Amino acid sequence: MASHDQDVTLLTFWPSPFSIRAKLALLFKGIDHEDLPQDMDNKSNILLESNPVHKKVPVLIHNGKPIAESVIIVHYIDEVWPGKSPLLPQDAFLRAQHRFWTDFIEKKIFDSLVRFMRSNDGGAAVNEEFIQNCLLLEGALAELGDEEEGPFFGGGSMSFLDVMLAPYAVLIPGVEQVMGLKPASREQCPRLHKLFGAVAEHPSAKVALPPIDKLKEYIQARYGSK
Amino acid sequence: MASHDQDVTLLTFWPSPFSIRAKLALLFKGIDHEDLPQDMDNKSNILLESNPVHKKVPVLIHNGKPIAESVIIVHYIDEVWPGKSPLLPQDAFLRAQHRFWTDFIEKKIFDSLVRFMRSNDGGAAVNEEFIQNCLLLEGALAELGDEEEGPFFGGGSMSFLDVMLAPYAVLIPGVEQVMGLKPASREQCPRLHKLFGAVAEHPSAKVALPPIDKLKEYIQARYGSK
Repeated sequence: MASHDQDVTLLTFWPSPFSIRAKLALLFKGIDHEDLPQDMDNKSNILLESNPVHKKVPVLIHNGKPIAESVIIVHYIDEVWPGKSPLLPQDAFLRAQHRFWTDFIEKKIFDSLVRFMRSNDGGAAVNEEFIQNCLLLEGALAELGDEEEGPFFGGGSMSFLDVMLAPYAVLIPGVEQVMGLKPASREQCPRLHKLFGAVAEHPSAKVALPPIDKLKEYIQARYGSK
Repeated sequence: MASHDQDVTLLTFWPSPFSIRAKLALLFKGIDHEDLPQDMDNKSNILLESNPVHKKVPVLIHNGKPIAESVIIVHYIDEVWPGKSPLLPQDAFLRAQHRFWTDFIEKKIFDSLVRFMRSNDGGAAVNEEFIQNCLLLEGALAELGDEEEGPFFGGGSMSFLDVMLAPYAVLIPGVEQVMGLKPASREQCPRLHKLFGAVAEHPSAKVALPPIDKLKEYIQARYGSK
């Protein structure tokens, strides 16, 4: 590994999909790092000092310099450690597509999932919205990912957008099993189902993603069940 | 100009700060392009087809390929036309900082400004929040921009974050003069005031930013006055 591999610390909170992304990118690239799990009810000085604006995880600290926000961290990791297979495609238009759908996940997929968990009316309307958003993502996967090459947006290998989406491979079933979310079916979103299946089998994702039972306990304790 | 300069169309709506950013980046890079102003109350087929997910401006269409979302468009422009002075710094950590504060502008500055315009209670609390967010941005400017080199985040020249912030050079005074927003004072945010002053004098920004009187009429018609 190059010298800039040294002194990499990641502040995390294990159920956070944002933390999972950063952890996954480091594991995928084979970057030695120290995990510093955080107690979000009792924030540490290192978290408050390294992310004074948002006071959130994840924060990547590389040679003393802190970088916050998962999308920005994964961009940074990919730029500093391009490795054998960069996460972002070489083509500028494809890079823009990966960034566009990342932004879509942030604004639509995560948002509708959280609103479902917080809803007081059973969440049918927001559940439908969530399914419609998954269908849009399915369309993007059909457009961007070469199915013959493999199940990912990056074809046979994980790419930027796969890392962005990977935490949902466990988060969606967690919300389904605890709170009764109806995810998009295999018939509606065959590519997304294959992608999530491949994520679950990926060696780096197996380490980065929390076990479903542990996540379900967390969701139950935090949001209750419907 | 290189051959990939050809066939560049920008779908815009003139008071949109997001449209202004994309227009400014094209002008700054000297890229020939066609403007296609949009009627947002009667969306054109070209808008609906080129941004079916969000149906919003700006959309950059380059050689027939559409790219949406202002931050992603400016990334794309900078990658395809790096030119003499790329907007994003060469250093990966500085690039991460530009992306972090861009995200901050999206989540905090724009958000508090819109909530002020929509508030029914005079907006004192959200006005204070807006000022606090400007103070955080002032701190970032002190950290990232070399004052001796010039007034911008990029020192003497506009950089990525300057393009992201430029529309606020006219938007903030517009909301101040129509709706009574109290912006951060020159004493509180001297660097930000200098930056906005330099934006107002910048040849590309003079073309990209709408005249304040026209913007004030738009704000008055859309949001009323307080």
